Amino acid sequence: MTGVGMDWSLGELGRMFGGEIAGDPDRRFRLVSIDTVDPDGIALCENQGYLARSGGVGALLLPMHLSGDDRPHIRVPDPRRAFRRLLAESERPLPLRAGIHPTAVVDDAADVHPSASIGAYAVVEAGAVIGPEVRVFPFCYVGDGCRIGEQSVVYPHAVLLRNVLVGVRCRIHPGAVLGAEGFGFERDDAGWHRVPHVGFVRLGDDVEVRALASVERATCGTTEIGDGSKIGNLVQVGHNAQVGSHTVLAPMSGVGGSSTLAPGTVLGGQAGVGDHVEVSSGVQLAAASCTTRDIRRAGVYAGSPARPLAQQHRLDATAPYLPAILDRLRRLENDREAE
Amino acid sequence: MTGVGMDWSLGELGRMFGGEIAGDPDRRFRLVSIDTVDPDGIALCENQGYLARSGGVGALLLPMHLSGDDRPHIRVPDPRRAFRRLLAESERPLPLRAGIHPTAVVDDAADVHPSASIGAYAVVEAGAVIGPEVRVFPFCYVGDGCRIGEQSVVYPHAVLLRNVLVGVRCRIHPGAVLGAEGFGFERDDAGWHRVPHVGFVRLGDDVEVRALASVERATCGTTEIGDGSKIGNLVQVGHNAQVGSHTVLAPMSGVGGSSTLAPGTVLGGQAGVGDHVEVSSGVQLAAASCTTRDIRRAGVYAGSPARPLAQQHRLDATAPYLPAILDRLRRLENDREAE
Amino acid sequence: MTGVGMDWSLGELGRMFGGEIAGDPDRRFRLVSIDTVDPDGIALCENQGYLARSGGVGALLLPMHLSGDDRPHIRVPDPRRAFRRLLAESERPLPLRAGIHPTAVVDDAADVHPSASIGAYAVVEAGAVIGPEVRVFPFCYVGDGCRIGEQSVVYPHAVLLRNVLVGVRCRIHPGAVLGAEGFGFERDDAGWHRVPHVGFVRLGDDVEVRALASVERATCGTTEIGDGSKIGNLVQVGHNAQVGSHTVLAPMSGVGGSSTLAPGTVLGGQAGVGDHVEVSSGVQLAAASCTTRDIRRAGVYAGSPARPLAQQHRLDATAPYLPAILDRLRRLENDREAE
Repeated sequence: MTGVGMDWSLGELGRMFGGEIAGDPDRRFRLVSIDTVDPDGIALCENQGYLARSGGVGALLLPMHLSGDDRPHIRVPDPRRAFRRLLAESERPLPLRAGIHPTAVVDDAADVHPSASIGAYAVVEAGAVIGPEVRVFPFCYVGDGCRIGEQSVVYPHAVLLRNVLVGVRCRIHPGAVLGAEGFGFERDDAGWHRVPHVGFVRLGDDVEVRALASVERATCGTTEIGDGSKIGNLVQVGHNAQVGSHTVLAPMSGVGGSSTLAPGTVLGGQAGVGDHVEVSSGVQLAAASCTTRDIRRAGVYAGSPARPLAQQHRLDATAPYLPAILDRLRRLENDREAE
Repeated sequence: MTGVGMDWSLGELGRMFGGEIAGDPDRRFRLVSIDTVDPDGIALCENQGYLARSGGVGALLLPMHLSGDDRPHIRVPDPRRAFRRLLAESERPLPLRAGIHPTAVVDDAADVHPSASIGAYAVVEAGAVIGPEVRVFPFCYVGDGCRIGEQSVVYPHAVLLRNVLVGVRCRIHPGAVLGAEGFGFERDDAGWHRVPHVGFVRLGDDVEVRALASVERATCGTTEIGDGSKIGNLVQVGHNAQVGSHTVLAPMSGVGGSSTLAPGTVLGGQAGVGDHVEVSSGVQLAAASCTTRDIRRAGVYAGSPARPLAQQHRLDATAPYLPAILDRLRRLENDREAE
Repeated sequence: MTGVGMDWSLGELGRMFGGEIAGDPDRRFRLVSIDTVDPDGIALCENQGYLARSGGVGALLLPMHLSGDDRPHIRVPDPRRAFRRLLAESERPLPLRAGIHPTAVVDDAADVHPSASIGAYAVVEAGAVIGPEVRVFPFCYVGDGCRIGEQSVVYPHAVLLRNVLVGVRCRIHPGAVLGAEGFGFERDDAGWHRVPHVGFVRLGDDVEVRALASVERATCGTTEIGDGSKIGNLVQVGHNAQVGSHTVLAPMSGVGGSSTLAPGTVLGGQAGVGDHVEVSSGVQLAAASCTTRDIRRAGVYAGSPARPLAQQHRLDATAPYLPAILDRLRRLENDREAE
């Protein structure tokens, strides 16, 4: 149960990665995590700290600079990349039969490419366009005005409500909701009035939208997620936001309506960017930080309101002295008065 | 792809809103967002800042006080309201055929009004009551003890688990979960014991619950969401909370169990109100703020713990001086000692 | 509508809990919440504060030390426990017919115990194992490599995507997503590369995963949730996290990848623990707090960065003086200079 279903001999690993092996080249190992107890397991071990925790595994995948011990091991120039390749070889696609499942409800006016697969109980509405080799899993809803590009995958229970344009090789995970209405209301004496949202969501190519994340459709125009961006579980992206390419939004982070993130922006977990905010290129926001103001200078920011990381660290380090500062100040003032 | 499917002539717009038009009254425009490049597009342009970004659009919808330029335009007293009306005219309802879809599983002991529509693969359990002109989209689950009032809409993949009473003209968006169990546990030596939840959720009239939001059902009694309230994506409302009418809970905000929000309360994105907290009328909590104490005075609050906005702003402005304060204090003390 | 469908006479309550009753032993009451107006309702009233709010209810369930008034009442040693029992007696199971619903799609290579129930439109893939007396509600997806232990319940719209091992008597609530991919990416010049996730999620026994919560599957190895742990609505648990037994993660809290929470840890609402963080035993994180560092000492922590509660309280109490501190310091310095 702990292994991942495949194994390789040390010799095979040596040939795959061009690394130095130590131990019987015919002995086979399966991939395990560093804390596992498994004499037939090989684990990625990047540094001395991991080495100290690796006592239960039979073999190690090491960087060149780490010498290991007398257990079988292989040393390679880029062990993380090697690890990623072994994971990829171990991965099986989630099961989905070719073609359209008999229980899927595909409207006659939907355009489904013959090489696409549509799972049980999926619903594809009139006007939707499903491209070549796209895989739509059970319970997905693909609404009108949605287009899904070649080789993209929509996992079980994802919703593309309407006007969602998905590039190629995107992956939309369970429970994600794309293209639902933007949170726009205007108040008068009678209460809040919904602003209708007739715009679009566009995902570039190679975008990942993880489980239970939501991207609102634009009022008019388009909420954009650039090529190669990765959106974590339970993330919210507001209507008309412009998220640049290769941006990472870690789980539980949020981007407000009409905000712009430059390509390559990174938001940590639970971080937030307010509405109508511009974030320039080269910016990272640490976990749980929040900005409601533009950030124009590259760097790492932390805290709420978000400040440059070094400044926030100094602030965090001195904050505990605050009660003592008050006392010392009072003492100085008393001394002064007593003079 | 950028437009929204409808267009209007300048003359028609003038007649609709009683505004002043400039340009050929027969020329037709479609609604676009301000950053679009579209010579046949008209965009809402509320102020000088938007005007500066509007270079790509062919025509402008302006307030009376803004003079525009030589492009075709229309000036109206309330341009946002005009914009909202154009959006509303552009909006099509999400497709749903009349009647009960043959794949829907509606229990014989459910009461579905003949004018209601139930989509593919919806499940309606015994004891559920679906009112006139209600629309229930594919994959919705409407459990026992649920009642949905006239003209309300339940979008794909929403769950009304049990004991959920929905008023008229409500809109429940994809992936929302209403009426799941409240998070109540009690500890003894054997561990945590679940407190059964046999109460209700009640939504007033004209309530919106957006995508992936959750409202827990009460232990006993009712978790209340007042008339006209708007609950954003990924919001959590705890069991037995009393959310007043016309309240706005922005995306990712949370309301703890048994808390009370006065009518008209506004929570910003990622803001939080703890358990058993009372918030009086006229209160707004800024984005990412949090209160675990009652707030009894009207005003805007920010930060965590939430403080009056002006106080929090002063605090944020002076906080960066904290390390320097420590240094300066030390210097004064040293001087003092040296005397 | 306000009651919960059952009622008991005062005399019956006295016999159930061995308490002292006051009033007609034959008079029957139903369970209501303290703020209800219902002369036939009995409410839990733990303290003087509740007593003050109880004017609308007909009878009271009191602790021994509270004397009540001239309304009918019962005084018992553990009124919360009595209340829980009355709730449990009032609770009906969510409706689900025995056996496999004709619309469920159960793969021939899935192993479903004959005493299990599978609801309408559930999908159970090849390789899934569903144990005795398990109840799987409509729209659930149980993927390959998933095993669900005896008497566990999977509520409507939950997703067990793959490699999810569920203990006995667990309850997985609507919209929860277990076993989706971990948020792991590595960057090179071409952009972010997905790290494949071939590991597992394991829930111990008696675990609750509430609505719209997500637990990512491990890269390799297992994301662990210990026996008796309770995970609230909209919670995120990252890949390879090790969540100890009897841990409580309140709604909207998050646990980063590869982090370890000792048994009994409690996270408040919206609290966060970063990646690769270790939290020792006896730790509680207050609502909206966040730690990205290890916590090695038992206690309650609050704020962001999280600090011991007493320290954070002092800090919160003195923070508003910060602007005045700056002024007073300046005055002292000026005085000093003027000497």
